[in-house]
Amino acid sequence: MFAIIMAGGSGTRFWPLSREKMPKQLLNICGDDTLIQQTVGRILPLIDRDNVFIVTNQALADDINSQLKEKFGGSWDNSFIIEPEARNTALAIGLAALHFERIDPDSTMAVLSADHAIQRGEAFLDLLRMAGETAQNDYLVTLGIVPTRPETGYGYIKAGKELIARSSSQTTNGSKPTAHGGVYRVDAFVEKPDRATAETYLAKGGYFWNSGMFVWKTKTLLQEIEKHAPALHNGLVEIRNNIGTDRESDTVREVFKKLQPLSIDYAVMEKTGRAAVIPADIGWSDVGSWTALDDVVVRDRSGNIKTGNVIDMGCSDSIIYAEKRLVAAIGLKDMVVVDTPDATLVCPKEQAQEVKAVVAELKKKNAEEHLTHRTVHRQWGSYTVLETGDRYKIKRIVVHPGAKLSHQMHHHRSEHWVVVAGTARVTSGDKIYNVHTNESTYIPISAKHRLENPGKVPLQIIEVQNGEYLGEDDIVRFDDDYKRHENNKRRPLPEVKKSS
Amino acid sequence: MFAIIMAGGSGTRFWPLSREKMPKQLLNICGDDTLIQQTVGRILPLIDRDNVFIVTNQALADDINSQLKEKFGGSWDNSFIIEPEARNTALAIGLAALHFERIDPDSTMAVLSADHAIQRGEAFLDLLRMAGETAQNDYLVTLGIVPTRPETGYGYIKAGKELIARSSSQTTNGSKPTAHGGVYRVDAFVEKPDRATAETYLAKGGYFWNSGMFVWKTKTLLQEIEKHAPALHNGLVEIRNNIGTDRESDTVREVFKKLQPLSIDYAVMEKTGRAAVIPADIGWSDVGSWTALDDVVVRDRSGNIKTGNVIDMGCSDSIIYAEKRLVAAIGLKDMVVVDTPDATLVCPKEQAQEVKAVVAELKKKNAEEHLTHRTVHRQWGSYTVLETGDRYKIKRIVVHPGAKLSHQMHHHRSEHWVVVAGTARVTSGDKIYNVHTNESTYIPISAKHRLENPGKVPLQIIEVQNGEYLGEDDIVRFDDDYKRHENNKRRPLPEVKKSS
Repeated sequence: MFAIIMAGGSGTRFWPLSREKMPKQLLNICGDDTLIQQTVGRILPLIDRDNVFIVTNQALADDINSQLKEKFGGSWDNSFIIEPEARNTALAIGLAALHFERIDPDSTMAVLSADHAIQRGEAFLDLLRMAGETAQNDYLVTLGIVPTRPETGYGYIKAGKELIARSSSQTTNGSKPTAHGGVYRVDAFVEKPDRATAETYLAKGGYFWNSGMFVWKTKTLLQEIEKHAPALHNGLVEIRNNIGTDRESDTVREVFKKLQPLSIDYAVMEKTGRAAVIPADIGWSDVGSWTALDDVVVRDRSGNIKTGNVIDMGCSDSIIYAEKRLVAAIGLKDMVVVDTPDATLVCPKEQAQEVKAVVAELKKKNAEEHLTHRTVHRQWGSYTVLETGDRYKIKRIVVHPGAKLSHQMHHHRSEHWVVVAGTARVTSGDKIYNVHTNESTYIPISAKHRLENPGKVPLQIIEVQNGEYLGEDDIVRFDDDYKRHENNKRRPLPEVKKSS
Repeated sequence: MFAIIMAGGSGTRFWPLSREKMPKQLLNICGDDTLIQQTVGRILPLIDRDNVFIVTNQALADDINSQLKEKFGGSWDNSFIIEPEARNTALAIGLAALHFERIDPDSTMAVLSADHAIQRGEAFLDLLRMAGETAQNDYLVTLGIVPTRPETGYGYIKAGKELIARSSSQTTNGSKPTAHGGVYRVDAFVEKPDRATAETYLAKGGYFWNSGMFVWKTKTLLQEIEKHAPALHNGLVEIRNNIGTDRESDTVREVFKKLQPLSIDYAVMEKTGRAAVIPADIGWSDVGSWTALDDVVVRDRSGNIKTGNVIDMGCSDSIIYAEKRLVAAIGLKDMVVVDTPDATLVCPKEQAQEVKAVVAELKKKNAEEHLTHRTVHRQWGSYTVLETGDRYKIKRIVVHPGAKLSHQMHHHRSEHWVVVAGTARVTSGDKIYNVHTNESTYIPISAKHRLENPGKVPLQIIEVQNGEYLGEDDIVRFDDDYKRHENNKRRPLPEVKKSS
């Protein structure tokens, strides 16, 4: 089985912890691992790591790559399918299907989300296996989450006739499709209901939350796309005809530009006669807002979820997130407080969805607090903006052992580097020299320079920039371990591999 | 007339904006000026600046000195009466009285608070004049604030027989002492009432809030202290006998240590037969908590008071304080949010008094967030701790034009200085040299060094400290424009001056 993990989501709902360039899938909001690390880790017992692919944009691919490398080791460089732009799920899934088709025309593929939480991972894998078997009979199988409340924020799947009975080891409830397991035909996909309708669904049973997780044979999917979504099919054919050629990345870009953004639900699932649903009671959450944490994180006796340097004086049922800075919360009830190095959010839980409006407002104001964090992670390490002043900027830069930044030059700034931990190897003009802890060096304006950690412990330097313009885009790259000097070119589809 | 401004208050009620070393009187929480600047500025039309004295502790004296110099120019070095320790108001006022007695035995003195807000400054000055006249008949005059609500947080003064009628230009209300102006005997000082009692006071009239502002002849006060507070009297006599001698500061310290802390209300005002009250309708507030801002600051249409980088989505009747960092507040109602560089407070208005408990908790935990801000002001400028890491610390240091730090040495740290604005004159060991913008220098461990701004614009440097111990107390001072190398000695009472 192959897996395609949809990881293109942008970070608005968990602002200010999530940012456009640091969306939810990259955050460890429930558990030590980030959501993408959890998603990949969860399926590795079932799916070979070479068969796991992530579809996302170029910027996020680098960060996800770093996180997967950190968690699972090895290289993930060939595990990405890059969307030139976000075009909803149908096209991204179709593109992945083309890829899997080349590797193995008889492959089965699972479509998963990078940023969902699943508490019962083993039960989930059992269902994936069951879905894989069902898919062999040319079904488009989806996991329908057994609802636990009359939720109005999700679409529902109405289950029909039973296709395969639940195994005897599972709790059974007659033939009524309300519990975990079993395979049913899909009667209908229904839109997000109002409260009353949602309550009826919950009472009647046989309705499941649409989780956006699918399993099918690659071939079945492509056939059903051809049947129900002709424009998408034509676009995919165009890509298929150019795959592996010089025209490949241009073709992908053109097709993405040309096609209407469609969800796979709309393009195929709602139209096909081959849809099947497996009820799943697996502790699933799409972690769609701050308040969703209540479902996936253990709360304290007063119902609070607290992280970091928090003083709590009589708070209850609140989410209070701090980092190093202190947050003192007195008498809060059903509130969300999220404190990050450059922005703080305070709102009642029932209005937590409105952070989207804050993000929109920040975009309109050309602010930066929706875009990046003060700490930005790179494959070579990270940098944190400590202060931005008039004609100067201060950064803390951490470089992983053995890593190096690009060979670069700035037109508008000089840089003072003070090493506070480890040893730096510095290239400045023609010279290469080492700078040790408690030593400093100076990179003049326009000097070609490079920073490298030749040692065995992380290198930390404090950089003081001086100049008339201090934007991140004042950088000319000559050579880069991470190929960013070639960033005018799109990364092509991964090389064709034979599945093991 | 002389003024003594009580400025020893410690900063708990406006935490996290106020700190132990940056109490409310030093903050500009209402208006551009700080409360101490407002307090001094308000009385200067009436009282000669040489006759204005501030009683406070040594640490705050330096900061108040800087603020007064900044606002009013000239030197305020001789305007301080230093309390060796906080011992409530009676002893501090008695000490001031001894001082005024030496300058002019027939002087009149006004006792004021450094951290109260008064919206109608001219009306206040009129009353001070009236109080000064009344005091000539040996009355101990207090300003009683005309209550505007049934406040339970203040003591009340019950007015008795009218001594002097209100002038005809003032709104009159029969002979009932409810409005501004007029002088009445004090019938009684009454404790903070319960709500019902406070409502009766408001309805009946003739009850006023005890503001802690007094006017009397120095002689009258000292006589009444002799009559009603014999222990205090004896202590003052002891100081008086040693004033101007080598024993002076030691005597002051001994007396402060020995005497019970008493309020001037308890020691004298509640016992004397000479107390008089002038009703004052002057827009007074003791600004005793965050919620008091509602009385002294103009609110927006939704009832909010917002400062700094705030995004407000549908908040009402809330106080939201931010600085450079962004605070996004959604749907808050009757809340207080205060965001500072190292600590954030979130609480409902009705629990704003409980910040005291947060401060107590921080003390217990040996934290620092109750003690100082990340930016600390000094007479030579300021420093801001930008980051504290493992074996390193980063500060931004601003030095006023012409100012210099002490000639100093550190046993445990070396320092890298990068100049980002202005020019530094650096003494390091035997050498003296200039460091310009975008240049750096290095101060080795144990090197005697000095930083000075010889220029005409503020000098800004970024200091990166490296070392095994980075506490502020690793400093040996050899010479200091601000005499801090002599800080084992207490500053004596100001030199005797003749009043003009």
